[in-house]
Amino acid sequence: MTSTGTTAQLMIGTDLAAEMVAKAAERAKKLQDETGVQPCLATVLVGDDLASATYVRMKQNRSKKAGIGSRSVVLPAETTTEELVAELTKLSEDPEVHGILLQHPVPAQIDERAAFEAIDPAKDVDGVTMHAFAAMAFGEPGFRSCTPGGILRLLEAYDVPLEGAHAVVIGRSPILGKPVGMLLLASNATVTYTHSRTRDLADIVRTADIVVAAVGKANFVRGDWLKPGAVVIDAGYNEGNVGDVHFEEAAQVASLITPVPGGVGPMTISLLLEQTVDAAERLR
Amino acid sequence: MTSTGTTAQLMIGTDLAAEMVAKAAERAKKLQDETGVQPCLATVLVGDDLASATYVRMKQNRSKKAGIGSRSVVLPAETTTEELVAELTKLSEDPEVHGILLQHPVPAQIDERAAFEAIDPAKDVDGVTMHAFAAMAFGEPGFRSCTPGGILRLLEAYDVPLEGAHAVVIGRSPILGKPVGMLLLASNATVTYTHSRTRDLADIVRTADIVVAAVGKANFVRGDWLKPGAVVIDAGYNEGNVGDVHFEEAAQVASLITPVPGGVGPMTISLLLEQTVDAAERLR
Repeated sequence: MTSTGTTAQLMIGTDLAAEMVAKAAERAKKLQDETGVQPCLATVLVGDDLASATYVRMKQNRSKKAGIGSRSVVLPAETTTEELVAELTKLSEDPEVHGILLQHPVPAQIDERAAFEAIDPAKDVDGVTMHAFAAMAFGEPGFRSCTPGGILRLLEAYDVPLEGAHAVVIGRSPILGKPVGMLLLASNATVTYTHSRTRDLADIVRTADIVVAAVGKANFVRGDWLKPGAVVIDAGYNEGNVGDVHFEEAAQVASLITPVPGGVGPMTISLLLEQTVDAAERLR
Repeated sequence: MTSTGTTAQLMIGTDLAAEMVAKAAERAKKLQDETGVQPCLATVLVGDDLASATYVRMKQNRSKKAGIGSRSVVLPAETTTEELVAELTKLSEDPEVHGILLQHPVPAQIDERAAFEAIDPAKDVDGVTMHAFAAMAFGEPGFRSCTPGGILRLLEAYDVPLEGAHAVVIGRSPILGKPVGMLLLASNATVTYTHSRTRDLADIVRTADIVVAAVGKANFVRGDWLKPGAVVIDAGYNEGNVGDVHFEEAAQVASLITPVPGGVGPMTISLLLEQTVDAAERLR
């Protein structure tokens, strides 16, 4: 595909995310100055998956830079569901911990849902509990799943009209596709959930004003799947730093598009930090 | 609109519902014979709305016929959120109560969500809690919202293929539109949520293999909104026993359609009774 001369505007998450972190850091400092309490994020890593370990370390580093304390729990790969639930319950009850992040995926022998549910919703700053999901769906107070919440912030920052827009979500995972659809619906978009069993996927995507790709397949969404002028959110992050959208093709059709990396990714971690400070303020 | 000669097959809920109730009654009897425990549904009615009182009485009568005990709580119209929450908490803790039904809508001064959340998910046989919603969305164990769950039963009974079908849900209430969409998604349908802010609603409905009307407006969905052969589920029940779908028009285009009354309605109450017996068996 050769360039047609028009190219989409990039939706850059990096600067917006940096602003969010700066504000969270200010609030963390204020809280500590006024009450002596430093917001604390507990990270729980099970097993020795390299990518997971890298993510956790990155989150800890960012926390530190924002003046947020961190507690690191690392459990062996053969940890049982019961052991992990016990650990998460302990952190949920620990008054010095304000936010809990269970790095996922967890090893296959663990019931991931049971583990997530052991996190007190008041400390669920990653928005993974059933309570968090229902709260997003019903507009009730609660923490947002970080990537979906970050995507909504990005759409707002770029003044994308959501009311009445047709948003097509590709993928239906419990912490990405499903909640982002519910948040878009709460913003009065018309929302279509698509997935691996969807027929005529490209035709459906072609009706979208907003496309959220959350499918985990490199370059899955092609340029000719898009309606000219569509807003394209790429929540994928596949091997080789490649998103779920074929960027070069899509950028010639879309009006706005998130780059990978530098689009959705930075928003995710910033929301995690922001929500950790929220939790500390509320739990204080 | 004059008849074209082809008319949709009716999806009758009445017989299927009667079968479900008969099975629930058998199980209730067996439980009582074996353990001495009679399943018990507590109904809570706030205020003196005539329609609500009628619904509650009907549910109690049906329970009785199925060998399910009932406990009736009637609170004055000026009940506060705190008072209602206290009552629901008491019922949640009462070992002799297995299922709790809060008749809604509740009077305007009450925080309905707070009231619903006072119901123990283990007794939430009407499927109104946030836990029930997330369980439906994630395929986790829990009770289904009765109307959505009843609709799925009806679709199954009439062998409507759901996998890959495009289902358009009109309406997004927490106990009807949102959960029915999640149940359809869990059955591998492609699901579009539409609502009052949706643009070009008729055009979107026209793409549906399955239409679920849950909007509460008499005769809202017209015949020319439907794709020929579509399956039409009318979850509306408006003044004058009229559904949300213009029945005469729709029946000439659809392949299958629920009548009002006698379609979705009977399924709702049957699932309530079935889930009350489920709860009693589990809580015993």
